[in-house]
Amino acid sequence: MCVDEALEGLVRSNGGLALLRGHRVVLRSDLESIKGKVALLSGGGSGHEPAHAGYIGVGMLSGAVAGAVFASPPPGSVLAAILTLWKGGASGVLLIVKNYTGDRLNFGIAVEQARTQGMHVDMVIVADDCAFAQPSKAGRRGLCGTVFIHKMAGALAEKGCPLDEIVARMNEATKNIGTLGVSLSPCSVPGCLPSFQLPPGEMELGLGIHGEPGIKRSKVASADEVVKTIISHMTDSSNKSHLSLKSGDKVVLCVNNLGALSCLEIAVVSKVAVHCLEERGVLVVRVMSGSFMTSYVISDLCFSDAKTTAPAWPNLSTASVSGRNMFMKPEEKPGASSDNYNEGSLSSVIRLVLESVCKILLQHQEELNALDRAAGDGDCGSTHALVANAIQDWLHTSRIPGNFGQLLAELALLVQQSMGGSSGALYCLFLSAAAPHLKQNCDGAAWAKALHAGTEAMKRYGGAEPGDRTMLDALCPAVEELMKLSTTVPPDGHIAILQSAVEKADLGAEATRNLTARAGRASYVASEHLTQPDPGAVAVAAILKAILNALKA
Amino acid sequence: MCVDEALEGLVRSNGGLALLRGHRVVLRSDLESIKGKVALLSGGGSGHEPAHAGYIGVGMLSGAVAGAVFASPPPGSVLAAILTLWKGGASGVLLIVKNYTGDRLNFGIAVEQARTQGMHVDMVIVADDCAFAQPSKAGRRGLCGTVFIHKMAGALAEKGCPLDEIVARMNEATKNIGTLGVSLSPCSVPGCLPSFQLPPGEMELGLGIHGEPGIKRSKVASADEVVKTIISHMTDSSNKSHLSLKSGDKVVLCVNNLGALSCLEIAVVSKVAVHCLEERGVLVVRVMSGSFMTSYVISDLCFSDAKTTAPAWPNLSTASVSGRNMFMKPEEKPGASSDNYNEGSLSSVIRLVLESVCKILLQHQEELNALDRAAGDGDCGSTHALVANAIQDWLHTSRIPGNFGQLLAELALLVQQSMGGSSGALYCLFLSAAAPHLKQNCDGAAWAKALHAGTEAMKRYGGAEPGDRTMLDALCPAVEELMKLSTTVPPDGHIAILQSAVEKADLGAEATRNLTARAGRASYVASEHLTQPDPGAVAVAAILKAILNALKA
Repeated sequence: MCVDEALEGLVRSNGGLALLRGHRVVLRSDLESIKGKVALLSGGGSGHEPAHAGYIGVGMLSGAVAGAVFASPPPGSVLAAILTLWKGGASGVLLIVKNYTGDRLNFGIAVEQARTQGMHVDMVIVADDCAFAQPSKAGRRGLCGTVFIHKMAGALAEKGCPLDEIVARMNEATKNIGTLGVSLSPCSVPGCLPSFQLPPGEMELGLGIHGEPGIKRSKVASADEVVKTIISHMTDSSNKSHLSLKSGDKVVLCVNNLGALSCLEIAVVSKVAVHCLEERGVLVVRVMSGSFMTSYVISDLCFSDAKTTAPAWPNLSTASVSGRNMFMKPEEKPGASSDNYNEGSLSSVIRLVLESVCKILLQHQEELNALDRAAGDGDCGSTHALVANAIQDWLHTSRIPGNFGQLLAELALLVQQSMGGSSGALYCLFLSAAAPHLKQNCDGAAWAKALHAGTEAMKRYGGAEPGDRTMLDALCPAVEELMKLSTTVPPDGHIAILQSAVEKADLGAEATRNLTARAGRASYVASEHLTQPDPGAVAVAAILKAILNALKA
Repeated sequence: MCVDEALEGLVRSNGGLALLRGHRVVLRSDLESIKGKVALLSGGGSGHEPAHAGYIGVGMLSGAVAGAVFASPPPGSVLAAILTLWKGGASGVLLIVKNYTGDRLNFGIAVEQARTQGMHVDMVIVADDCAFAQPSKAGRRGLCGTVFIHKMAGALAEKGCPLDEIVARMNEATKNIGTLGVSLSPCSVPGCLPSFQLPPGEMELGLGIHGEPGIKRSKVASADEVVKTIISHMTDSSNKSHLSLKSGDKVVLCVNNLGALSCLEIAVVSKVAVHCLEERGVLVVRVMSGSFMTSYVISDLCFSDAKTTAPAWPNLSTASVSGRNMFMKPEEKPGASSDNYNEGSLSSVIRLVLESVCKILLQHQEELNALDRAAGDGDCGSTHALVANAIQDWLHTSRIPGNFGQLLAELALLVQQSMGGSSGALYCLFLSAAAPHLKQNCDGAAWAKALHAGTEAMKRYGGAEPGDRTMLDALCPAVEELMKLSTTVPPDGHIAILQSAVEKADLGAEATRNLTARAGRASYVASEHLTQPDPGAVAVAAILKAILNALKA
């Protein structure tokens, strides 16, 4: 039932696929385009998705026959698929079968019956498992390496290669594919458990794709050690099912997710595996990582980059993995060192203003922390102190840019590097957005424009408005007052406007006592517990007051 | 650490990607090809792989900036990425950012700073979450719909569209994307657990991509009911973050795996979701199913089929999902009905032989079951009885083909349909492979050839040899004797050869007592427990004896 629904879901989702009515058979919907070419048919028990139907498309499979979960499909369905492909005009039909008794027998029956009816049919058995040093009579199991045979045979068939040649080349190719499965117990990463029971902290090497037991259990080791163990076992010549791999060989590496690992972990394993192979002098030509079937595959074979439309085939780059430089050098940031600018006539004033701001922030550190303990995580004073210390250090070692735009950009960088948290980001945004509006000598109008731009950036990126119990409740009324600088006030009126702005900021900060927090961390605290002013707003008011005091002096 | 290793693994595995040294920034390795075009940059906390770096490639992103797991990246790295793209010759840089405060602020800082430095930079915020009927100040979260913005903006940028036009079109497009997450507790399928704690049997609707709690918990329902709940909630106009969706709308459906579902389950959900949308008159244009970011997305937008080389983008068909016929009619099998053939001169003899075989198999049913109980699952007699009954029914209702090839093909079909198990498959293979060598009138040489071909097919597909304690231990010595039919024995000597073959089969069956089982189910039973003959070999000997008796009579 579940298999039928899943097949219908797959086919519904992919315009290139069609279902053969009455069978668990998926075929290419454009059968007319296989005319005169060899058609490829794969299949087996379900539960290995995206294998096999996900590999149907131009340049890969023509069809796939699904059984119940982990059970071989009935020969009648295999035969129905062969017949449809043959009558569709295929010059021959190649069955790609994993080496399990059930699949060998059921696909075998269909092959024999199709031949009896005069169809040109053949079969390639894939047995890529490297687990068993002494394989039993049943031979090596067919695992994820099968996907490569789909791809290679698909590329040959698409080129018009005849059936016997594809069979001969695939029988050679299967000798050069090796796979080893490993299952780890869950680590600290959330999400998944292995598909069979393992005591915590143990891993199972050599398991099959049906959760069959493997060859060895051991303690879970680091990714490096696990990968080394896998590759050593796979290539150990005393292992009768080993893959010969020597320095200079070119390989395609497939890191296949059984389902229990996150993409992040798979990427880590890929990195380690490439490294481990390169240490042996092996050249990695391609890496495929993702959920392809199950297990861990190395294939020492001629890889085909030919295009395919199969939905489960990944978008692979055609660049060789080994031997390329994967690092880029970052562009140098346009110089922010004080060698690049000169002090100006107001630099000494600015120095006094900044010293005043730093002093007041350090004085208020404990008060701000106390306010923040009631509303957030109690570090508001400390983060402001961090940036105050950074500015003091900078004042000791640097010139003060005469260009105010440059000054604000420098300060933005200091804030970004030292302060952290959302308030650091918001100050940084304010300064960065204000900076472009200021030059060496600028008037009140330029300052008004700059302050407005800074405030707007804070609102836009932070998503808060005045009234939300944030620093904006002090900043916005002050900036509104400071916008008067843009009118034709004589320069000696500027201090009065600033004085008035500081008062507005103070009132705004004080009024946050009665506001409900709607942004920032305080919004998670119940209103009845928020009886003190917002520490961010208090800090803004304090900074403005410090600026005023310095300018007055 | 883990993030750095994973990024290196991703970049190592994909020739189209490169790392920016000193930063968690992945860029296209062919930056020269973005010259004069808009470059696209995305990013955010890690842990959402393949987002975001997996979407880098021609026709999608130019780069991605990764933070620590679930943490926004530092603005310095965002700026370094912008700078590298800008200096690489991009005509502008578009940042695609998910609507989280941290990302908005940190990407925002980089935008402001880049602008200060004269770069042409803009930002699109994606907020596609449909969970909250009354979204908070922070607004809707950015979820998996972001991937579509990557794709659409990427297609426009590749075509040479200017920055402001891409921004305008993406700001429109984001309005037409809706996403809703759901987490189920594990069902009976092995493999996985959900990413956060849920009492067994409950599901959580509307969760975020960081495992943030959702809007509603309820009992796990069927896939149909869950999908209906999701789509109703997403499109409910009383939900302030709903997606407007009406009959006639064209949508792209994305069924995104958070990681806890198997491919099989995802395919089932896809099927149900397409059905549910079509019931509302909505036309599904494309379905993407797999692991893209997290959650469940419906996007009512203009989909781009433009090519991309991004490794995480799937191989999608360009056929519309809704409105196509997804079923194919199987080809008729060449007639096996008895209308298609005539009886021959020996048909009455054949009838006697088959009746004799059926009778003896039914007589031996309990004896064969007893032998099998000691070595396997105890049904050897019963499965032989099934086919005996089927042949008896067939004898009552059908003509006996005069052509022996046709006869054996008919019997193969009867065995395939009625017998089951490995022995059913093996008899079927024997008969299917023997059939093509026989005609209407055939001599001893043809029979010898046919029996040889049948035996070889059994060995080849079954993987066993004489001596492995299987039916071959009776069949092979008998067939070896029967090969004498190919020499110039006079027809009246045929019975003597058959007599001798039956004796060989008897001896062979009896001798299996002393053999170690190396194939079939008995190979899992310790040798010291196998003291009786192999039931399959005994059955073969009995069948041959029945044939001899009938022919003698």
